[in-house]
Amino acid sequence: MGKKDKEFVKEITPRAEDYSQWYLDVILKAQMMDYSPVKGCMVIRPYGFTLWENMQAGLDERIKATGHRNAYFPLFIPESLLQKEADHVEGFAPEVAWVTHGGNEKLSERLLVRPTSETIICEMFSRWIQSYRDLPVLMNQWCNVVRWEKVTRPFLRTSEFLWQEGHTAHRSEEEAEEHTLRMLEVYRDFVENDLAVPVVKGQKTENEKFAGARETYSIEALMSDGKALQAGTSHNLGTHFAKVFDITYLDSDGELKHVWQTSWGVSTRLVGAIIMVHGDDRGLVLPPKVAPTQVILVPIAPKKVREEVLPKAAAIYEEIKEAGIRIEMDDREEYSPGWKFNEWEMKGVPLRIEVGPRDLEAGQAVLARRDNGEKETVAIGDLKARVPILLGEIQANMFEKAKNFREENTYRTDDYEEFKKIIEEKRGFVISRWCGHGECEQAIKEETKATIRCIPFNLEASPGKCLRCGTESDKLVYFARAY
Amino acid sequence: MGKKDKEFVKEITPRAEDYSQWYLDVILKAQMMDYSPVKGCMVIRPYGFTLWENMQAGLDERIKATGHRNAYFPLFIPESLLQKEADHVEGFAPEVAWVTHGGNEKLSERLLVRPTSETIICEMFSRWIQSYRDLPVLMNQWCNVVRWEKVTRPFLRTSEFLWQEGHTAHRSEEEAEEHTLRMLEVYRDFVENDLAVPVVKGQKTENEKFAGARETYSIEALMSDGKALQAGTSHNLGTHFAKVFDITYLDSDGELKHVWQTSWGVSTRLVGAIIMVHGDDRGLVLPPKVAPTQVILVPIAPKKVREEVLPKAAAIYEEIKEAGIRIEMDDREEYSPGWKFNEWEMKGVPLRIEVGPRDLEAGQAVLARRDNGEKETVAIGDLKARVPILLGEIQANMFEKAKNFREENTYRTDDYEEFKKIIEEKRGFVISRWCGHGECEQAIKEETKATIRCIPFNLEASPGKCLRCGTESDKLVYFARAY
Repeated sequence: MGKKDKEFVKEITPRAEDYSQWYLDVILKAQMMDYSPVKGCMVIRPYGFTLWENMQAGLDERIKATGHRNAYFPLFIPESLLQKEADHVEGFAPEVAWVTHGGNEKLSERLLVRPTSETIICEMFSRWIQSYRDLPVLMNQWCNVVRWEKVTRPFLRTSEFLWQEGHTAHRSEEEAEEHTLRMLEVYRDFVENDLAVPVVKGQKTENEKFAGARETYSIEALMSDGKALQAGTSHNLGTHFAKVFDITYLDSDGELKHVWQTSWGVSTRLVGAIIMVHGDDRGLVLPPKVAPTQVILVPIAPKKVREEVLPKAAAIYEEIKEAGIRIEMDDREEYSPGWKFNEWEMKGVPLRIEVGPRDLEAGQAVLARRDNGEKETVAIGDLKARVPILLGEIQANMFEKAKNFREENTYRTDDYEEFKKIIEEKRGFVISRWCGHGECEQAIKEETKATIRCIPFNLEASPGKCLRCGTESDKLVYFARAY
Repeated sequence: MGKKDKEFVKEITPRAEDYSQWYLDVILKAQMMDYSPVKGCMVIRPYGFTLWENMQAGLDERIKATGHRNAYFPLFIPESLLQKEADHVEGFAPEVAWVTHGGNEKLSERLLVRPTSETIICEMFSRWIQSYRDLPVLMNQWCNVVRWEKVTRPFLRTSEFLWQEGHTAHRSEEEAEEHTLRMLEVYRDFVENDLAVPVVKGQKTENEKFAGARETYSIEALMSDGKALQAGTSHNLGTHFAKVFDITYLDSDGELKHVWQTSWGVSTRLVGAIIMVHGDDRGLVLPPKVAPTQVILVPIAPKKVREEVLPKAAAIYEEIKEAGIRIEMDDREEYSPGWKFNEWEMKGVPLRIEVGPRDLEAGQAVLARRDNGEKETVAIGDLKARVPILLGEIQANMFEKAKNFREENTYRTDDYEEFKKIIEEKRGFVISRWCGHGECEQAIKEETKATIRCIPFNLEASPGKCLRCGTESDKLVYFARAY
């Protein structure tokens, strides 16, 4: 770590004091990212990027296991393509970056930097898809996208971000709907099992759905400040794009039909979710499945025993590493063990192994967990077996802890005054009845800053009255203030 | 494959008839890529992208094994940053894409879409590097870059392409030079061993080096039409960028010094090298180490024996797949075995397994190699052991074949008339003496279209006279016409 960084972030602001500042302190101090000279665009530093690479690996495997293959489409999209789908252009045009010149020449048509790739992918689908035999088309792309944001926050909302966007074409309405929900389930599985972040699955309202989609589904997570974060979306595009891009196939009955499409994406915003769901006042707490470093080995080796301790620590390091665990050893001489403990706790490494001369004499090592601070002493010969078990327990405990937090911070009311009080004073999710009208949703948003996160799958409809307008309604929805 | 594609590319033009057309036919027919609505930008289709993913995996592992970590820097670079290094701006300004508007607002400063990231990375290095303890900094980035090209050719020269760019900072001149050569060796090892493409390592001339570099080294490959392709470059940047970006560190002697830097990159252009080095008139020939599909299993199952053959073929498929081999089974009913053989040969799959009813009766299968057309009959029980051995032999044979081709097409002369004749009639590499002057190099280029590919490491200096001007010179260099 360079000296300027150390001066810049001396301490981590406690969450209770200033949550936003805590978030920035943590990601800067842990060297997850840095600000760049380009407004709204961040640099993802190696520690943050390695986390993202591990996340990509887990999700990419799932995307491939469901039959998709990766491809790459151009960064630039001609303005005329964006114009084709009316809702889509209305949703995205205000926030695109425009390329007007190539070299010294003015372009005959402006190009936009992709904010999402439906339009250019549909253009290609219309060339590639001809027969029912070509369907389904199941593609995914990992790439950068740009949305010119006025107010940005690292990982959560940046003008450029990294993501994957899946794009598929199907023969029938049912198949497309099934696929939309299948990918939502892939996201839930990935986010809950790999990132240890519990989510609510549900459908977006008309106001909140993707520009150009027929239906949008999402997974919604609750951050530790009680605000919600949309963690992933899956869209049933119906035949909206197929009609304007003329994507047709000759069906087995001899008729020319439009394909049914889906698209879905998650982004580097999930890094922000991990930080805000698990982090504490000492810094990051990273889930073992995606942590860049799963285990940090700190030899306690004062000068006079250094020659004795280090080779034995190195042997432990090699053994754990060979077991396929991402372990690092911190044998720097210029820092004390206590300083190193703090440093690696701040960086959120799930498990620490301490070995000092007395431990080695007794043939043992100390294991310290980041998630709950528990320590245990383990015989050196048992480390290789014990470490993976503990990493599994940490992963499971982090999920349980986050789930308990969410449950403790999920409220149920149809009383608007109580609703406003909860939203203002406690935050969290509030489950309430809603009449289904956009105007009422909009009014609630203006009056409380809470939005409908989703119409959940997990709640059964039951009769009652809309929270705000009192109209009869059986529709229970999740409200929250959101990032 | 959609019908339009089939109509579009009916046959592959023979190489001898029109090499450029052969190249385009192969990549379109094999669905490696497609043209996009954006001039000079291509779509990399799943078959081409999976090849690239396999290439990335092999190279990324080597980059990490040499101590680098991946990071991500912004796509956009403020114009003022590009302007800082004089040679760099002169080299890149004419071919950058300019972003002038964000949403509906004109930007106060134009942003360029990165053609390479030295400038923005140096800006960040100047913030991060303070002490000799921060060095070396070893980073790599996988990303898209844009260079606004007037004449493009898929994979070889496109306005947008994918690549990795390594960027490092070191404490001493020697360390930076060593690192530049270390990464060149990483490239040689990767390209020769994974892509089966033999290369010549050497140094670029002043005229040909990277804009802003002190020294540029490259690996140069020979395509099957006798033209050369620069397959990777590694630059010693000296302190050129450190001085203009003020990247300094406090050394252990208390003095403030500039860091020594390197940068190095390879791109999707290597996909073009694979195609042109190994492909033949029937299509692609892909090296097993990176082939999307290493083995294609074609059951020969006419209708009346279908129920009998398919389950046994499926069992073979499962067994080979479990051995970690990338195998696919083509059991489509609508195509004949002969059609399938052609299709998969065109797609360059290294090895085919054929199993028909008679084979199964005899407890055997036929293995057919793509590289040399050899077939052998193997007992089904031995397949799992035999397939990996054959894939290894194919990989080695492809490299040997390409190396022999290169050696047969490498000439040695200091006679300018003979040189011109070889370049015009035979192509290939020509090793000749050169005086070391840029003017002479430039004149040879204008007179013959041949450029100095590199000043090779593998040739000993010996006295003689410059090919063109007759000046005394001991410098032997590789000339060729190049992509």
